[in-house]
Amino acid sequence: MLFDALPDSVSIYEVSPRDGLQNEAVTVPTTRKLRLIEALAQAGLTRIEATSFVSPKWVPQLADADEVAGLLPRVPDVTFSALCPNAKGLERALTTKIPEIAVFISASETHNRKNVNNTVEGTLAAFGEVIAPAVKAGLRVRGYVSTLWGCPYEGEIDPRAGLRIAHRLVEMGCYQISLGDTIGVGTPKQTRDILRLFMSEFSIPQIAMHMHDTRGTALANVVVGLELGIRTFDASVGGLGGCPYAPGAAGNVATEDLVFMLDGMGVKTGVDLEKLWTAGQVAKAVVGRDLPGKVHKAGVRSLRH
Amino acid sequence: MLFDALPDSVSIYEVSPRDGLQNEAVTVPTTRKLRLIEALAQAGLTRIEATSFVSPKWVPQLADADEVAGLLPRVPDVTFSALCPNAKGLERALTTKIPEIAVFISASETHNRKNVNNTVEGTLAAFGEVIAPAVKAGLRVRGYVSTLWGCPYEGEIDPRAGLRIAHRLVEMGCYQISLGDTIGVGTPKQTRDILRLFMSEFSIPQIAMHMHDTRGTALANVVVGLELGIRTFDASVGGLGGCPYAPGAAGNVATEDLVFMLDGMGVKTGVDLEKLWTAGQVAKAVVGRDLPGKVHKAGVRSLRH
Repeated sequence: MLFDALPDSVSIYEVSPRDGLQNEAVTVPTTRKLRLIEALAQAGLTRIEATSFVSPKWVPQLADADEVAGLLPRVPDVTFSALCPNAKGLERALTTKIPEIAVFISASETHNRKNVNNTVEGTLAAFGEVIAPAVKAGLRVRGYVSTLWGCPYEGEIDPRAGLRIAHRLVEMGCYQISLGDTIGVGTPKQTRDILRLFMSEFSIPQIAMHMHDTRGTALANVVVGLELGIRTFDASVGGLGGCPYAPGAAGNVATEDLVFMLDGMGVKTGVDLEKLWTAGQVAKAVVGRDLPGKVHKAGVRSLRH
Repeated sequence: MLFDALPDSVSIYEVSPRDGLQNEAVTVPTTRKLRLIEALAQAGLTRIEATSFVSPKWVPQLADADEVAGLLPRVPDVTFSALCPNAKGLERALTTKIPEIAVFISASETHNRKNVNNTVEGTLAAFGEVIAPAVKAGLRVRGYVSTLWGCPYEGEIDPRAGLRIAHRLVEMGCYQISLGDTIGVGTPKQTRDILRLFMSEFSIPQIAMHMHDTRGTALANVVVGLELGIRTFDASVGGLGGCPYAPGAAGNVATEDLVFMLDGMGVKTGVDLEKLWTAGQVAKAVVGRDLPGKVHKAGVRSLRH
């Protein structure tokens, strides 16, 4: 049975310019961000979250969101998106040509409070001023539901709490919900159970997996998703971003590792691994530190002769 | 179907004192090796490859094999083993109380030549002076078949070449064959195919998986093995050992990452993850460098509150 019904292709949603850079200690100059984004697009990535229209007070690393959005390269078939936490963010997004925004909420009440200084219910209410107006303005809206595999404050999270939030987001107009293992504690059997729960109430295109590799289990969890039919995976080149709860530890699954595995399984991504590796080297230069991605460290050329 | 027939427990074969330390640039003093071995046993590991009776000329890092073997702690239920490449190695092993030895051969002709300076056929012939005499002397003998998922010199390897070698090893007396992804290029569908091939001709207890995490796919491949019924997995605490073909890259899958995943899946290992994490810190101190293991870096205490 195993892998007999793999999809021909899957969709990779690249988060490094936003989710990666917002977790870096350094603030990267705008031109360098654009160089990274350009390299990602050249590698064949077609969905790139470029920045976040969040208050510079909260995320100074992305204070240049308007400038980045205005200078995005025009590449055929590439959809850029940006995080929009509130109505003010949407207002800024609407002055740009970005065709897609994303909203972010936690399945954990405590994590949500610490992250956005609001209750889950309060955050959902505030999304009323973001999601529907964005859809009305012709934007697509994607929702993140984080800490579904576990919370750094509350520990285990009932995935049904995340399911209820996801329903609210979809009702408000989100076309896809990205299920997040925000602290990288997920294991494969748990992943099976969480995905089955969401798949029982949503369609495959509505579900994405956003896995962190903090304990080395990201690709093992992705394999479970593949086997169950999931076709959208978030990733960050080089594993850019790290884990805010464990300094020095890995965060987002590295896009190179994901593409390497999918290539080996015959699942198309549209991404050229050599060029992606080059984009990872750009990312490393841009942040000026070693990145945790495995293929990023091991290299591509030695892979396949 | 997925994970509905997981084994209650699996067996972990710890390779860090041999496979890990032999790939380190530094030669670790004997007392420190014994301290690592003691920490591994205290964590609950019951199969530990402690050293190698190889010529000090080839592997100076393990030149103290006789001394290490003579000073091994006596811990109930722990089986220590040692690599024995030839008759001379066996002779040395037989002067110790080590109850198990291992032999090592590549599925790739070129890798085998570069690794042991002999053809595959010549290596098998030389094993005639090791395996049967060892079994006759009351030792258990384990066989490694390496580069099954790919070779740094030849690229793709026909797994049937490895299968023929495995049959020879079993005929000579090996109780178990450890299938090695020596350079960490394996992907899950390939793993499924390789395991199915070996499972069609060998029993489950005869098969072990020895996966490297060089491209981040080790646990994804282990999950495939678990789903297919494999119950023995090699690992190295902290990911000790690195990859000799890619400096700075990861090698052996980290025992902590493996145990973390298995704990999360409800599969017993007998290993206490907290104590194992401590053994990983000992390993780090012993070699004096950062190790690549993910749980090793992220910590255990933050995992489960």
